[in-house]
Amino acid sequence: MQRIESHACFGGTQEVWQHRSGVLGCEMRYGIYLPPQAARGDCPVLYWLSGLTCSEQNFITKAGAQRYAAEHGVIIVAPDTSPRGEGVADADSYDLGQGAGFYLNATQSPWAAHYRMYDYVVEELPALVDAHFPTTTARAVSGHSMGGHGALVVALRNPGRYRSVSAFSPIVAPTRVPWGHKAFGAYLGLDAESWREWDACELIIGSQPGAEKLSLLVDQGEDDEFLDSQLQPTRLQAACEAAGHPLELRMRAGHDHSYYFIASFIGEHVAHHAAALRG
Amino acid sequence: MQRIESHACFGGTQEVWQHRSGVLGCEMRYGIYLPPQAARGDCPVLYWLSGLTCSEQNFITKAGAQRYAAEHGVIIVAPDTSPRGEGVADADSYDLGQGAGFYLNATQSPWAAHYRMYDYVVEELPALVDAHFPTTTARAVSGHSMGGHGALVVALRNPGRYRSVSAFSPIVAPTRVPWGHKAFGAYLGLDAESWREWDACELIIGSQPGAEKLSLLVDQGEDDEFLDSQLQPTRLQAACEAAGHPLELRMRAGHDHSYYFIASFIGEHVAHHAAALRG
Repeated sequence: MQRIESHACFGGTQEVWQHRSGVLGCEMRYGIYLPPQAARGDCPVLYWLSGLTCSEQNFITKAGAQRYAAEHGVIIVAPDTSPRGEGVADADSYDLGQGAGFYLNATQSPWAAHYRMYDYVVEELPALVDAHFPTTTARAVSGHSMGGHGALVVALRNPGRYRSVSAFSPIVAPTRVPWGHKAFGAYLGLDAESWREWDACELIIGSQPGAEKLSLLVDQGEDDEFLDSQLQPTRLQAACEAAGHPLELRMRAGHDHSYYFIASFIGEHVAHHAAALRG
Repeated sequence: MQRIESHACFGGTQEVWQHRSGVLGCEMRYGIYLPPQAARGDCPVLYWLSGLTCSEQNFITKAGAQRYAAEHGVIIVAPDTSPRGEGVADADSYDLGQGAGFYLNATQSPWAAHYRMYDYVVEELPALVDAHFPTTTARAVSGHSMGGHGALVVALRNPGRYRSVSAFSPIVAPTRVPWGHKAFGAYLGLDAESWREWDACELIIGSQPGAEKLSLLVDQGEDDEFLDSQLQPTRLQAACEAAGHPLELRMRAGHDHSYYFIASFIGEHVAHHAAALRG
């Protein structure tokens, strides 16, 4: 594992590391912000999952999260959004292939060989981070758009693994919208039954009555250009009401799908996670 | 003048506008952050001048200044760093031509036709901004690297025009370093005497004893990769000491030349300017 960037930032360090992923079968990069507290002891980790077209760079350069991570003593790990490289299948499209891994394990050719972002984000990357950095076992997860879908799905599928989960503008029901139809059809095949385990609303509706119900925090811009076509947060609301799953959905007047929206509220999300991670 | 971007951000709006610049003879873009206070009344304006290779996008997407502008009720205007477009002279180089206007008025062919960033930043752009947005007459200026040079030079050349000036990692003595030699030689010609009016240290040393001496606030990373070769802040220190010009130079341990450095301290700079702008 090789450190390819290191920048002092708000008393800590914003780093970018590159490593060979066995799960994905390619070189991968991730950003990690180490707050000042990490120089003195172990810190909890917030995993951030980015949206379509993003690399590990977008969140670390645009969200302004380091200030809040430094304030609360939280490490933030921001992986890339798909396997990458010449030997990795791709599509001539922003919403399929490289930059669009959808945080699932693909079953269909040619994607199945490398597209296992779920295993990477849930298993391989945390093991790597825990082995190399001063982390506690307390983890949280958040993300934006496709990464909001990813955050909800990894938290819902792994009770007890994350202390808290939040999302900005998540794709809450990929089985019902064009982005999900395209990606799931390619990665998982045409049997839509197999899609359900990667859909936050389906996971909530299908959960056991006695199962742990981790509270969901979701921020959504009311002027988001993808609100009606791809995001449809009312589906999440309906699913949570039907299943008795706790949800705080905050509709934000005037806000769009951009990083200006994330920057405006990332401080509240980091504070939310920090409280859960300390608890 | 046409608005090409508008994003809700920290209770205000981050916008990007495009207009025809008569001074530069081309279409230009600038970012403007309107804090929530601008919806209710006039606000002072901080002009931000970016560094080599930047467009109007870098500062507005990476510095995280909107939070502080919203807190203090300051408008921030961030222009592009040079004239642009097919009819505008360029060089196959990151530090000359488009993206590298150096905030001066070029006198040499082929640059003189369009490269008048000094007049644009000091005259045309503020007039345009004042005509279209709810501004007071109170102005401040700041910038990074080449834009730090620009901020110091426009403030030093225009006593009374700016209430305050600050810079991150500025090129304080362009007549003495490779970036300046290359740019000034091309834009101003080989008579180095003509370079002096565009060099902050020379302006300070050459100032009249009784002239207004606007205090300079400068932040500089100690691990900046351009510290010794291009920036040389000790020259600024020596010039200010010789001329009795007030300077606060803050050397920041561990910090480099990146936006992670700017993001870490832009809040202090905005607060500094806000205090002067209110005064």
